[in-house]
Amino acid sequence: MKLFFERIGIVGVGLIGASFALAAKKYGIAKEVWGYSNSGKSSKEAEKLKIIDRAVSSLEEIGKSCDFIFVAVPVLSIPLVLYELSKYIKKGTVLTDGGSTKHFVKECHKYFKNKNFVGSHPIAGTEKSGPQSAFASLFENSTCIVTPIKETCPSKLEIIEKIWEIFGMKVVLMSPEKHDRIMAEISHMPHVVAYSLVNSVKDKHFNGKSITNMAGGGFRDFTRIARSDSTMWADIFVANEKNVVAAINDFEKSLKKLKKIIKGKDREKIMSFLNETKKVFLFAKK
Amino acid sequence: MKLFFERIGIVGVGLIGASFALAAKKYGIAKEVWGYSNSGKSSKEAEKLKIIDRAVSSLEEIGKSCDFIFVAVPVLSIPLVLYELSKYIKKGTVLTDGGSTKHFVKECHKYFKNKNFVGSHPIAGTEKSGPQSAFASLFENSTCIVTPIKETCPSKLEIIEKIWEIFGMKVVLMSPEKHDRIMAEISHMPHVVAYSLVNSVKDKHFNGKSITNMAGGGFRDFTRIARSDSTMWADIFVANEKNVVAAINDFEKSLKKLKKIIKGKDREKIMSFLNETKKVFLFAKK
Repeated sequence: MKLFFERIGIVGVGLIGASFALAAKKYGIAKEVWGYSNSGKSSKEAEKLKIIDRAVSSLEEIGKSCDFIFVAVPVLSIPLVLYELSKYIKKGTVLTDGGSTKHFVKECHKYFKNKNFVGSHPIAGTEKSGPQSAFASLFENSTCIVTPIKETCPSKLEIIEKIWEIFGMKVVLMSPEKHDRIMAEISHMPHVVAYSLVNSVKDKHFNGKSITNMAGGGFRDFTRIARSDSTMWADIFVANEKNVVAAINDFEKSLKKLKKIIKGKDREKIMSFLNETKKVFLFAKK
Repeated sequence: MKLFFERIGIVGVGLIGASFALAAKKYGIAKEVWGYSNSGKSSKEAEKLKIIDRAVSSLEEIGKSCDFIFVAVPVLSIPLVLYELSKYIKKGTVLTDGGSTKHFVKECHKYFKNKNFVGSHPIAGTEKSGPQSAFASLFENSTCIVTPIKETCPSKLEIIEKIWEIFGMKVVLMSPEKHDRIMAEISHMPHVVAYSLVNSVKDKHFNGKSITNMAGGGFRDFTRIARSDSTMWADIFVANEKNVVAAINDFEKSLKKLKKIIKGKDREKIMSFLNETKKVFLFAKK
């Protein structure tokens, strides 16, 4: 199967959308890339940076003119964007998204009478945002979860899988529900925890400076995560509320257990708790 | 003040002790560096790697022969090592340690009738351990907290401060109690939280593999922290139990607050919680 599109449309030209545009050009899968952003600011910026060929001013233009569309807006806005696009797209157009939650896949599938939409989640990103932070290799060597449902068109699913593979990703298929449960645990929780920890020390000072100035590498990783885009993460937490709350509950149990044995100064039990985490490394690829 | 020692003794030749030896050589502050380790294994390894000039087999040899001694063993063992050394050392010998908690400083000060000991905590390290992971620039551009008490000898304090500055560290002075409270919050907590989070997902799999295989950079930072030496961290948690438990309590409150507003899907409140962490970055140096 050779993948080539006349015109790829990117909706939401931030870090992920603009990196998709760069990767599409790098791997020669499109003649042209157009972009649309809500405010027009980031699409114009991306046009100036030659990341996209043209910044357009409406979803209608994207819908009517593109044969492949990638939606990379904050998760709570994805359903509305897909609904709008569904009014204009051509029969054969393939659409996917880059949303960090997949709660909307079942509902949004119904908008497309030709089964044009397949949900995906490329697990890639940095704490930076905006088209100026984009780079073509952002997706390389990471996992992309693609979330077909029983109504998904097999040939469109295949196209989506192939594109992510061309971009250097390892594709894993699972249901939208499973995706949202797993992401709550391995992606949303690190953010919940990092934001909470930084929040809990934010007002603590020594000699007029934040105590975090004295922190080593461990804490700096947390502050890096807690610098992530707050709009994006507020959206994710709301969109995946049920799973995130369940994951927080699991984590709280684990933390309570560790607190208890620290309180008891039970060195042996603490060591075995800490060593239990090694199980994960046995399974981890790197 | 010119700093130069005939013979520096390193007790505990792991990552920190061996990096101290390398830095001492790099900056020419000693004619010779000797090392002692409990099992003899890491001191011999360091001798083989030419990190130290000689691996000795007793604390007595270190105590009797060295005019500067750096103790870099797990925190719970520091008091015993200092007590042993106090029996042998020469009048003018200066000692410091690299312990991550400073709960023992007041007590151990009493062992030395010539006020030979000043506590310090170079906030440097990696998740690796052992002399083979050591490097001379480990201490550069990080903070070293030195913890004098009212009985500390001012000229010995000055020597300790200067050495860390020569190694490239920014020295901050504070009481041992203050040190332990602050470290619980910015150093021990990231480890508590990382170990707890990895622990809470350790048994979760998808297609026979740990779900953490699909994780992005955020979770990988946590697993990196949770790979740290478990003996060292169990010791720290026990040694600083009271402050660590207090910091966990603070963190739990902060987490509970975030959980509540996520549960309420209150996007505005979530955003303002996430944005509050930016206060910290205003004060942070990098």
